[in-house]
Amino acid sequence: MNIEKIKEKILAFSNDRQWEEFHNPKNLSMALSVEASELLEIFQWLSLEQASNLTDKKHEHAKQEIADIAIYLIRICMKLDINLEDAINEKMLLNEKKYPLIDENGNKIEYGNKD
Amino acid sequence: MNIEKIKEKILAFSNDRQWEEFHNPKNLSMALSVEASELLEIFQWLSLEQASNLTDKKHEHAKQEIADIAIYLIRICMKLDINLEDAINEKMLLNEKKYPLIDENGNKIEYGNKD
Amino acid sequence: MNIEKIKEKILAFSNDRQWEEFHNPKNLSMALSVEASELLEIFQWLSLEQASNLTDKKHEHAKQEIADIAIYLIRICMKLDINLEDAINEKMLLNEKKYPLIDENGNKIEYGNKD
Amino acid sequence: MNIEKIKEKILAFSNDRQWEEFHNPKNLSMALSVEASELLEIFQWLSLEQASNLTDKKHEHAKQEIADIAIYLIRICMKLDINLEDAINEKMLLNEKKYPLIDENGNKIEYGNKD
Repeated sequence: MNIEKIKEKILAFSNDRQWEEFHNPKNLSMALSVEASELLEIFQWLSLEQASNLTDKKHEHAKQEIADIAIYLIRICMKLDINLEDAINEKMLLNEKKYPLIDENGNKIEYGNKD
Repeated sequence: MNIEKIKEKILAFSNDRQWEEFHNPKNLSMALSVEASELLEIFQWLSLEQASNLTDKKHEHAKQEIADIAIYLIRICMKLDINLEDAINEKMLLNEKKYPLIDENGNKIEYGNKD
Repeated sequence: MNIEKIKEKILAFSNDRQWEEFHNPKNLSMALSVEASELLEIFQWLSLEQASNLTDKKHEHAKQEIADIAIYLIRICMKLDINLEDAINEKMLLNEKKYPLIDENGNKIEYGNKD
Repeated sequence: MNIEKIKEKILAFSNDRQWEEFHNPKNLSMALSVEASELLEIFQWLSLEQASNLTDKKHEHAKQEIADIAIYLIRICMKLDINLEDAINEKMLLNEKKYPLIDENGNKIEYGNKD
């Protein structure tokens, strides 16, 4: 994913519309949460089966909401000077410590030499 | 951003813990929304100035919540067979149509030949 | 429900802790959304059956999150000078118009003389 | 607030539209969170000053979203057999313990004999 190019487009889009003054991290965290709820709304009355087999219309809608979430997420990273790829990789290491794998003898299984 | 490698790591992590059965798109949309609110929580009582100048501790916390949001977002894309980069680019084209630029004569400015 | 007494207690609690300056409607809408997500989190990995038959521990947890949501909701009403009971009754009238009942002949059934 | 009458109206409204099967506590927690985000959306780009001085149009919009939140909150209480007033009063006692008042000598001030 060419995230640098996406960042450039997002910044140009925002600058062209003079939206920069509104893009405070506090406001952006609200906008991100609103978009996450718009994705949630698609699934709220669906059964688990329906959620796994979206109609074409709902699938397209979900894709657009997912994109909106991603755009605000990248926008916040720009504002907070966070490298998203590094943040993900660091968090996955933390998650591996938080939820360790245990082998049949009760020994913790390290990720690198797990099998 | 090497999103294919991140996808592999997320899938292995989930498979190793036998979490796949829980990772229905409906449930994942809930988890994503919960993580978005954990980011929101960091900013809820801050002034706009404080939000733009996070303490180191709050900045690290925000980075972790942002990573959690990204991980669930990528997870949903995997489940719904959505290419995140394509989704972002398509949505930005839609946004340009939704929020057109107008020049000083009231004419719509097309993005490609805007200057 | 003695909502006036609850309002008094909420206001005294906030005043005693000098929290009034933080209780701007914008901040309160964030806090409310955060609490709503804490309720959501209880249900995120549960099946519909499990959600309808909560364990005692999860039921108590849900009760506390529901109370937090109610407290912030009442707090916002106080700040925006909204009478919650009137707001609910007015909205239910709007909902009846938005989702009309249709009888077997395709005629709209009015609520007051529905049977 | 005549909450018993509101409950009756909410239940009749839902029964008349055969919505009961969708009103699982899991689904309702999603709907509640979606409504909380619709309130959040009103405030997302406003300054704290603007948020405290809503236009009439935004105030009416906020009132409707607040009502929707209250309706789903009461609906969840009905489904989980929770008395909302009791839940609020119990939670406020917990909050007083969680955020104790300290007098000028560092002694905890009990609520009942605080002054």
